[in-house]
Amino acid sequence: MKNLLLAVLVSGICTALYGQKEDSALIKRISDEILTNGKAYENLRHLTKKIGARLAGSPSMVKSEQWGLKLMQESGADKAWMQECLVPHWVRGGEDSAFASAAIKNRPLDIVALGNSTGTGPNGLVGQVLLINSFDELEKKKDEVKDKIVFYNYKFNDTYINTFLAYRDAGQYRGQGPSRAAKYGAKAVIVRSMSHATDNNPHTGATRYDSSYAKIPAVAIGLRDADWLAMQLQNGMIPEIKVSLKTNGHFLPDTIGHNIIGELTGTEFPDEIITVGGHLDSWDNCEGAHDDGAGCVQTIEILRAFKAIGYRPKRTIRFVLFANEENGLRGGNKYAEEAKANNEKHILAIESDAGGFTPRALGFSGSEEQFQKFLSWKPLIAPYGCNELVKGGGGADIGPLNRALKTPTASLNPDTQRYFDIHHARSDVFEAVNKRELELGAVNMAALIYLVDKYGL
Amino acid sequence: MKNLLLAVLVSGICTALYGQKEDSALIKRISDEILTNGKAYENLRHLTKKIGARLAGSPSMVKSEQWGLKLMQESGADKAWMQECLVPHWVRGGEDSAFASAAIKNRPLDIVALGNSTGTGPNGLVGQVLLINSFDELEKKKDEVKDKIVFYNYKFNDTYINTFLAYRDAGQYRGQGPSRAAKYGAKAVIVRSMSHATDNNPHTGATRYDSSYAKIPAVAIGLRDADWLAMQLQNGMIPEIKVSLKTNGHFLPDTIGHNIIGELTGTEFPDEIITVGGHLDSWDNCEGAHDDGAGCVQTIEILRAFKAIGYRPKRTIRFVLFANEENGLRGGNKYAEEAKANNEKHILAIESDAGGFTPRALGFSGSEEQFQKFLSWKPLIAPYGCNELVKGGGGADIGPLNRALKTPTASLNPDTQRYFDIHHARSDVFEAVNKRELELGAVNMAALIYLVDKYGL
Repeated sequence: MKNLLLAVLVSGICTALYGQKEDSALIKRISDEILTNGKAYENLRHLTKKIGARLAGSPSMVKSEQWGLKLMQESGADKAWMQECLVPHWVRGGEDSAFASAAIKNRPLDIVALGNSTGTGPNGLVGQVLLINSFDELEKKKDEVKDKIVFYNYKFNDTYINTFLAYRDAGQYRGQGPSRAAKYGAKAVIVRSMSHATDNNPHTGATRYDSSYAKIPAVAIGLRDADWLAMQLQNGMIPEIKVSLKTNGHFLPDTIGHNIIGELTGTEFPDEIITVGGHLDSWDNCEGAHDDGAGCVQTIEILRAFKAIGYRPKRTIRFVLFANEENGLRGGNKYAEEAKANNEKHILAIESDAGGFTPRALGFSGSEEQFQKFLSWKPLIAPYGCNELVKGGGGADIGPLNRALKTPTASLNPDTQRYFDIHHARSDVFEAVNKRELELGAVNMAALIYLVDKYGL
Repeated sequence: MKNLLLAVLVSGICTALYGQKEDSALIKRISDEILTNGKAYENLRHLTKKIGARLAGSPSMVKSEQWGLKLMQESGADKAWMQECLVPHWVRGGEDSAFASAAIKNRPLDIVALGNSTGTGPNGLVGQVLLINSFDELEKKKDEVKDKIVFYNYKFNDTYINTFLAYRDAGQYRGQGPSRAAKYGAKAVIVRSMSHATDNNPHTGATRYDSSYAKIPAVAIGLRDADWLAMQLQNGMIPEIKVSLKTNGHFLPDTIGHNIIGELTGTEFPDEIITVGGHLDSWDNCEGAHDDGAGCVQTIEILRAFKAIGYRPKRTIRFVLFANEENGLRGGNKYAEEAKANNEKHILAIESDAGGFTPRALGFSGSEEQFQKFLSWKPLIAPYGCNELVKGGGGADIGPLNRALKTPTASLNPDTQRYFDIHHARSDVFEAVNKRELELGAVNMAALIYLVDKYGL
C-alpha cells in the first residue's frame, strides 16, 4: 500500500513535471516564432502609416476594418467575420485654434478640442480666462465663473509610480470639467493635458456632458502652454487674459461600424471561448500606434504564431478588433450582447489596451480559485517579461462581456512610464513603438491563452 | 518571564514595523523629490547637446570633466575632486567609408570603424569579401581567407529575452573577430552590428587585437547593409564582391583624464564608503545619452536628492563619474588602486551602465548573508520598479574595486529591450531617453543606498 501510494505520488509528480516541461517548451516555441518571424511590427506600420487615424465613423475606420478582416484571413483564422454595430460619428469639423491676448498679442496656444465636444461654431468665441486649479477651487470661485473660459490647470501627479493612477486622478477634469463649469455659466473650458510629457502636444480624449447643463466647447492644451498661461494669470501682471477659441466639433448621425473577429475553432471544446483583443479605432489627431494599434497587431500576431507553429487549440480562440472604444464603446457592448443572445460560454477575455510597451504584468479578475490557478502559471510566464501576476485585470472592451456573462477578464500590463507622454496626442505614432516590446506583449498573452486553452480556468 | 519575553517580542516587532514604516516614508520622500524636482533629465540634455560625444582623450572629455566637477559642487557634495589617471587616446582620424562593387557600382555601405582599430591609411584598401557566418565556418574556410575582407555576419539572437545575453553571444565577433581573421591572412574585417534595431545605423565598440597577429582594419556595418551584402554573396549571382574601405583610426600617446568624485561624508561611520557611479566617457560617434550619460546624471541626482530632502548619511557616499570605460577602463582601475593604497573600507559599490530605461531589477554580488539582507529590502524597493532583486550585480567600472578589496557590488538593471537598438550607434541620443524612466533609475538606486547606509551590509 505504501509502495502503491509512493508510486502514485511519484507518477503524479512526474506527470506534473513533464507537463511543466512540455508547457515551457511550447511557450518557448511561441516566443521564438514571434521574436524571430513576427509580423506585428510591419502590420502596425501599415495600419498607422497607410491607414492612420481611424475614429469611429471616419472613412479610415472602414479601411481599417477591411485591413483587419483580410489580415485575420491571411494569418490563418478558421473563420473571420465582421460583427456589425452602430457607432457614434463625432467629427472635429476643421482645425482647432486658440490665441491668447496676453504678453504677445494673439499668442497661439497649442490646443485640441476634446472628443465628443461641441464646437464654438465658425465665428469662434472670446472670453476672459479664469484659472482654476481644482474642483474645490471651482466651488469657491463659482460666482466668478459666469461668461468666463474656465482653465483647469490640475497637474498630472508625477509622484505616482504607476502613471495610470495619475491619469485616473486628473482624468475627471476632462470628463466632468466642462459640465461642472457650465453649471456656473462658463462659456468654454480649457483643460491641462493629462500627461507628464516634456513637449507641448495637447492630448484629447472624450468628455462627458451632463445633460442638465449647457454643452460648452472644451479643449485640451499642451503642457508648456498651460504652464505659460497659468504663470501669466498667477503673476497678476496682466489684469485679464482673453482667449479666442475656434473649434468645430459636432456629431453626425450614427453610422455603421464593425468588430472584426477571427477564430481558431477548438478541437475538443469548441463551445468554450477565449477572447483576446484590442480596439481598432483611434483618436483622429494621431496614428493611434500605441492606443491601440499595438493591441490589434498583437492580437493578430498570436493567431499567426499559433498557426505558424502548428498549434491547434482545444478550445475556441476569438481574436477581436473592437470598434469604437474611444468615444462610445459600442463594439465592446455589441460583442457582449451577441455572446449573451447566443448563449455562448466565454471562459476568459484578455485585452491589450495600455500601449505596446515592454510587458511587466498580467492582471486577472475572476474567482479566488481561478486566480490561484492563474498564479500557479507564473514560473512559465515570468521569463518573458510579465513577472507579476496581479489581481485586477480587464479592459474597456471586454468589460461588457464580464458584466453580461461574468466572464473572467485579464489584461496585459506593460510598463507605464512612456504611455501618457503620447496618449491621445499627435506623438502617438509608429516611431514611438519598439518592435521587441510590441512582440513581447504578444508572447506573454499567447502564453496565458495557451495555458488557459490547455488547462481551462 | 513569559510576559517579559512577550514584551520584548512585541517591542521588537513594533521597532521593526516602525523602522519599516520610517524607511518606506523616507524612500517615498526621495522618490517624490526626484520625480517632482529632478534635474537628471536637464543635466543629461546639457551633457549630450552642449558637450556631446566624449571619448577618452578628446577635448570634450575635458569639458565633460569640468561640467561633472561643477555639478557635483552645485548639487551639494561636501567635497568634490578630480582623480587623475592616464587614459588611452584613440582617434577615428576622419570619416570612415566603405563602398561595394556589386549590383550598383560603388554602393555605399553604412559602416563605422571599431574602437581601438587600426585604419586603412589615407589610400584605403580594396578586397574581395568572404562571408563568414560563425567562427566554426571561419575554421572550415581558413584556406580561403588570405587577402580577403572577412565579413562576419553572425546574427544577434532575437530569441533571448534579456538582450545582454545576445550581446555577450555576438560580442565575441567584434572583440576577437579581427585577430582570428588576421591569423589566416585576412586584410580587413567587417562585422555585423551587435543589434536587433530596425534601422541601418552601424554600432561601434572596442575590438581587442591579439598581439600574435597583424592588426588589420575592422569596421561594423549597419544591419540592413549587412543583410544586403550577405544576400548578394549567398545568391552567388555575382561571382565576387569587392569592397573598398577607408578608415583612419590610430592611437596618440596616452593623455591625462580624470574620475570625477563627489562625496557626502558620513556622520557616524565616515570611513565606511558606499560608491555609486556611471562612466563619463562615450564613443565618439554618438551623444552617449544612454551609454552612459544616464548613469552619470542618475548618480548626481541621488546626491542632489539626498541634499534636497536634508538626508545626512551615516556612512560616506561617493558619487563617481568614471573615466574611460569604453576603451581602457583606466578610471575604474585607478579608483580601485587608490582605494587599496589608502586602505579604504568600501562596503558597497553600485553602477548604472545599462541605459536609462525603466528600472526592473537590482543585481547584487556579495556573500550569501549579505544577499539575504539585500533580499529583505525587496518590499521597500519593489514599488519603485525594481521588483526583482537578483544575484549577480556589478559593472565594468566597479569590477576592479571588487577584485582589489572584495567589495560587494550591485547594478541597476533597466529593461533591456531598447538598449541594443542604440548602443554605440549614432542613435544613442538624448531624444531616446525618457525623463521618468531615467529618474526612476535614480530612485531605485537611492533607495538601496539609503538602506545600506542605514543598516550596513
